[in-house]
Amino acid sequence: MFSQVPSDETIGIIGSGQLGLMMVLEGIKFGMKFNILGNKGDFVCKFGKCFSNEDYKQFIDESTIITFEFEQGNENAMIAASDSKKLFPSYETVWLKIEKLREKSFLSSKGIAVPRFKLAGDGKEALKIVKDEFNGTAVIKKSAGGYDGKGQFYIKNNVYSEAIEKLRENLIVEEFINYDYESSVIITSDGYKTVSYPVSFNFNTDGILVYNYGPVENRREIDVAKKISEFLHYRGTMGVEFFVRKDEILVNEFSPRVHNSGHYTLNSSITSQFENHLRAISGIEIGSTLTNNFFGMVNILGKSYVPSDLCSLGNVHWYYKNNTNPRRKVGHINISGKAINEVKEKINVVIDRLYSNNFYFLKL
Amino acid sequence: MFSQVPSDETIGIIGSGQLGLMMVLEGIKFGMKFNILGNKGDFVCKFGKCFSNEDYKQFIDESTIITFEFEQGNENAMIAASDSKKLFPSYETVWLKIEKLREKSFLSSKGIAVPRFKLAGDGKEALKIVKDEFNGTAVIKKSAGGYDGKGQFYIKNNVYSEAIEKLRENLIVEEFINYDYESSVIITSDGYKTVSYPVSFNFNTDGILVYNYGPVENRREIDVAKKISEFLHYRGTMGVEFFVRKDEILVNEFSPRVHNSGHYTLNSSITSQFENHLRAISGIEIGSTLTNNFFGMVNILGKSYVPSDLCSLGNVHWYYKNNTNPRRKVGHINISGKAINEVKEKINVVIDRLYSNNFYFLKL
Repeated sequence: MFSQVPSDETIGIIGSGQLGLMMVLEGIKFGMKFNILGNKGDFVCKFGKCFSNEDYKQFIDESTIITFEFEQGNENAMIAASDSKKLFPSYETVWLKIEKLREKSFLSSKGIAVPRFKLAGDGKEALKIVKDEFNGTAVIKKSAGGYDGKGQFYIKNNVYSEAIEKLRENLIVEEFINYDYESSVIITSDGYKTVSYPVSFNFNTDGILVYNYGPVENRREIDVAKKISEFLHYRGTMGVEFFVRKDEILVNEFSPRVHNSGHYTLNSSITSQFENHLRAISGIEIGSTLTNNFFGMVNILGKSYVPSDLCSLGNVHWYYKNNTNPRRKVGHINISGKAINEVKEKINVVIDRLYSNNFYFLKL
Repeated sequence: MFSQVPSDETIGIIGSGQLGLMMVLEGIKFGMKFNILGNKGDFVCKFGKCFSNEDYKQFIDESTIITFEFEQGNENAMIAASDSKKLFPSYETVWLKIEKLREKSFLSSKGIAVPRFKLAGDGKEALKIVKDEFNGTAVIKKSAGGYDGKGQFYIKNNVYSEAIEKLRENLIVEEFINYDYESSVIITSDGYKTVSYPVSFNFNTDGILVYNYGPVENRREIDVAKKISEFLHYRGTMGVEFFVRKDEILVNEFSPRVHNSGHYTLNSSITSQFENHLRAISGIEIGSTLTNNFFGMVNILGKSYVPSDLCSLGNVHWYYKNNTNPRRKVGHINISGKAINEVKEKINVVIDRLYSNNFYFLKL
């Protein structure tokens, strides 16, 4: 039974960015209270009690359930929250994400297809592996850290930046996938039942998602994502990204959290990925993920305003960040349409109006 | 331009029920602050500063824009807010709603079709009019107050309750419309641009909306609603209810506020009626009203819980009321589907699970 008694949980969120903000905005309607571990000046702190990173013990004490908006958040806080049995998704899942090697080894050990990869102890070894084992063309990625394309180096025909030679850390050398397109899927599991949203087509540039749309054909992405969730005894919302090449789908990575490619669920699905994450971790029955018709999303990167007419094309979400740079995600525009082409046309208009000819190459 | 600077408005809402709650939940993402005039124990007061009805002057002073969740709210507050130029929609609009006579006279003076009506000074006169001018069958409605079917009496073939004879107030005698169905439409206007949501089919019993679904054919409902908005120089969201009979649409009433029959917009439209109301009254460009596919809504009347499996059929919204009675709206369930029949089937399931055979007559 789902009763009309408000939730008495106090949800602690590790991280104070937009993903946490969207969780909070979806969760307050249940009566949940929120604690935020992060920067007190961030917009999300208007809706809860904010703790500085060093005060993570107090943050944990004052929260009944702890989650994170980003897996590379305050690790001490995650470990302590896990020790106190309050952390969802589990620390075991986060641990896999701390080093790409762990994530990739886990996935391949479970029979899930990923791009071929090798571990290298430093830059020189990595370059040798590229030459000897990948025919001179591969991607070198720092094993630890790195997101939105940071810490990645593309090598083509053995041509590389000298900076790579100086790297003194674990690196992954990964097969360069000449994919047809990138896709992703969002799932939510409460540990018993796992539900999925439709598969989306994603357009990334320099490792940053610029836009996505869907639904596109489900080429087993949903099955694979559910399998990962099952292996991890996962609880919460997860995004899984894929490279699609002919009949093959390879997992690029999974993100044990709400995901940028699922922002569309805020305006196109009966229950958003954010709401379902909170339901799953707090014991409220998961809501329907039915997503009607065709949806799309364009990230607003480094802009402090958008032309007003874009409001009539979709729904503009601002994150109200205190500062920005050209690659920073500061908002997004959710759109929908009665046909996939209508969505694509709207995405083209939005990209034109937002980025004009600086981003002409992004057009569909 | 729509900038990423948070709104600095403090929106005062007259009334502390669910309509105000849903407005607040949609508005806080813009950075708006909220003042609430109503009962301090109500759930919405968790999200703003709450003022008792007698403190309406302070409430007005501390708010930059004032609106209401219900047109029959604190009238002194509405008048004072209007005097301070802060009230949207306007007091002229509210004034029309204080007496049904005013509303009906306004509509018919503008050439908008309404059921035939007559004014009576008391119950005896009303009964005489029913007999002499309506052939013994009509509806008697108290001119002042009355909502959700309160203060209405159906007379068929001159058979009536004796209570009517004792009424000593202005009454409206209204033609009984043997309608094919009831419909409604939600529009939002910022005073320049007016946008509309799809027309819905509404099922009311004893004057209370039990469920609605759509889109159904637009039989000029949208035009009529826009016309009413134009005549009123309206700013905000408005719901207009119709009786549909063959080729004819008659306005039952308009509601100068967010409306129960537009709750589906929270989960099926790119921008909800609540968000658009706040945009319209605070100068933020109105958002797209695109509503995908087929939607439905079932009111939860007088229940303190629902079976959990209904969560997988739709999205259950609770209002967290402190007490209830069998006719009280305590929540609603938004559903959607890829065909109108899928929506209708889901509505049947929800009604079965919520009301079992007590409400069997409600089934589609």
